[in-house]
Amino acid sequence: MPKSTHVSELDLIAEIRRAFPASRRRTVPLGIGDDCAILRPPPGHDLLVTTDFTLESRHFRRETHPAQAVGHRCLARGLSDLAAMGATPLAAFLSLALPRNFPGTPIGRRWLKDFLAGLGNLASATHTPLAGGDTAQSPTETILADIVLTGIAPTGTALRRSGARPGDDIYVTGALGGAAAELRSVLAGKSPRRASKGDYPHLYPHLYPQPRLAQGQVLRRRALATACIDLSDGLSTDLTHLCAASGVRAEIDFTALPIHPLAQTQPDAFHLAVNGGEDYELLLTAAPTTRIPGKIAEIPLTRIGTILKRNFRHPPITLLHTDGSREPLNPGGWQHFTTQELFVEGK
Amino acid sequence: MPKSTHVSELDLIAEIRRAFPASRRRTVPLGIGDDCAILRPPPGHDLLVTTDFTLESRHFRRETHPAQAVGHRCLARGLSDLAAMGATPLAAFLSLALPRNFPGTPIGRRWLKDFLAGLGNLASATHTPLAGGDTAQSPTETILADIVLTGIAPTGTALRRSGARPGDDIYVTGALGGAAAELRSVLAGKSPRRASKGDYPHLYPHLYPQPRLAQGQVLRRRALATACIDLSDGLSTDLTHLCAASGVRAEIDFTALPIHPLAQTQPDAFHLAVNGGEDYELLLTAAPTTRIPGKIAEIPLTRIGTILKRNFRHPPITLLHTDGSREPLNPGGWQHFTTQELFVEGK
Repeated sequence: MPKSTHVSELDLIAEIRRAFPASRRRTVPLGIGDDCAILRPPPGHDLLVTTDFTLESRHFRRETHPAQAVGHRCLARGLSDLAAMGATPLAAFLSLALPRNFPGTPIGRRWLKDFLAGLGNLASATHTPLAGGDTAQSPTETILADIVLTGIAPTGTALRRSGARPGDDIYVTGALGGAAAELRSVLAGKSPRRASKGDYPHLYPHLYPQPRLAQGQVLRRRALATACIDLSDGLSTDLTHLCAASGVRAEIDFTALPIHPLAQTQPDAFHLAVNGGEDYELLLTAAPTTRIPGKIAEIPLTRIGTILKRNFRHPPITLLHTDGSREPLNPGGWQHFTTQELFVEGK
Repeated sequence: MPKSTHVSELDLIAEIRRAFPASRRRTVPLGIGDDCAILRPPPGHDLLVTTDFTLESRHFRRETHPAQAVGHRCLARGLSDLAAMGATPLAAFLSLALPRNFPGTPIGRRWLKDFLAGLGNLASATHTPLAGGDTAQSPTETILADIVLTGIAPTGTALRRSGARPGDDIYVTGALGGAAAELRSVLAGKSPRRASKGDYPHLYPHLYPQPRLAQGQVLRRRALATACIDLSDGLSTDLTHLCAASGVRAEIDFTALPIHPLAQTQPDAFHLAVNGGEDYELLLTAAPTTRIPGKIAEIPLTRIGTILKRNFRHPPITLLHTDGSREPLNPGGWQHFTTQELFVEGK
């Protein structure tokens, strides 16, 4: 048994505070250390809020996922929700429950340090201060985290899921299926334990997804998109959400889908791209008269289909093949992707 | 084995939405159903944010705590943090992870219904709409919740822990030790399973604590308090936090402490009152020239001591007895209150 020393909640809070320098921004006049944090969004801005659980053996496995990647993904999920609405991050809140004695062991201390580093690196890169949260002892041997992201957007300008109109073109940022393909090798124990800084954005779409904040902000600022959602559950599921919110249906061009290089080598590349989930790319619609740039901040945008008028004789999403034939594309995203219990995830 | 039916995350979200009617307020233009919620604090207001875990077998036990009380307490903890800063609730966010199959069983369905009712009743009573959250399957058999409360206060007016000055008087709202005394009987299995509406505020300080929102708002609006904190960890611990944040020390009058009727019948009434925790009363300081009302919104305020200049030869908190003798009062709140693992709680 490793030697274990008692680590109190106050020690844990101190460790978290060390990993995140106190914010001196005017928009966060009071961070960790009082009953509440105080946020002061600039006048004329809405505040956007999203929360995401990160639960061991649901969203990650300690054996296969480096702690650094767990911390990164924890924050990336919420940042991607902000990106989908074109928001700028304001502050994050981390609730963390560790198993009893875990932070008192060398392995636990290392895990915590790496977890906070992964979270902190992405927080720095995206200018997201940590303004609060909660700590507790986990009631079991599983690590539990919940993260809150707040962001801002000028009043009334945030992108929503509900604005797609018949005739709009459908676009995605980046490429699809990479996260699911990488997850497959991670679960098989093939992924490197630690990524060196800088090389991960393309190589590790599952372990180190890059939230499309810059892209979302340009889309919002230039009013390019009629609707937007992030691809967390997979194209087939998230496009279904967007269509339901907008009261429309959609047709996807089979040949137009940008498949991630990691997925291209897999026999079920198309399945990974449409059902894989967790790519954290943006899915957006734009009026046919809008000129969508080929790239925003280095990331390509690809037209993949068309929004159509809802018609209950047609399925919500159809797939158009090169020979002109059509088939329904059923929502088959993350919830059903793996036969494993692991990574059954909501939202 | 009870019959179990599969309940998906979407069903769970639908159940939660049913328990909380959609907000039509201008301050919450977009609630559940998009990538983020949108909050629109009125111009000239700060936004306050606090998060609190509620984890089974840490913060409650399924065997002894009625689900209705678990839901109530879940929200009450965050509302009490808002109260301590004099804020008005804006919106809540609930993250909830239930054990696999639990919501598919009759017992689980009943638990969820009661939990949401307890949460929803307090949300209605305090005008706190639910604007979002997350759901997941718990990785174990324990129920996991994390709740985010947001509130508003006119810019720069929120009460803080850090404003106490030497010479200030120390006050508490309500009475102390009731929650710890009731917890004792709850753990012994003596508490009623369900409270009838209306009778619980005084009878059930542990199961149904009443956040002092009205009192905090009056203190802030009339600028009566120099510092304020809520009593979540116990007077000895929370007063230590307030003194540390303000750079002062404190002396408590032994005879002045208002002891809750439920605690008065216990042999260790004083211990329960100063170390018991979770009373969710407000602890505040006021300049000696400020006239503090005897009651605010029906709840008495009692002067219990004085703020003194920090002096490293004296302990941070001393207790003044009737005979003029003094003894140190060490922080001995919630973290160390019970010998049980249960209810070891941070912050």
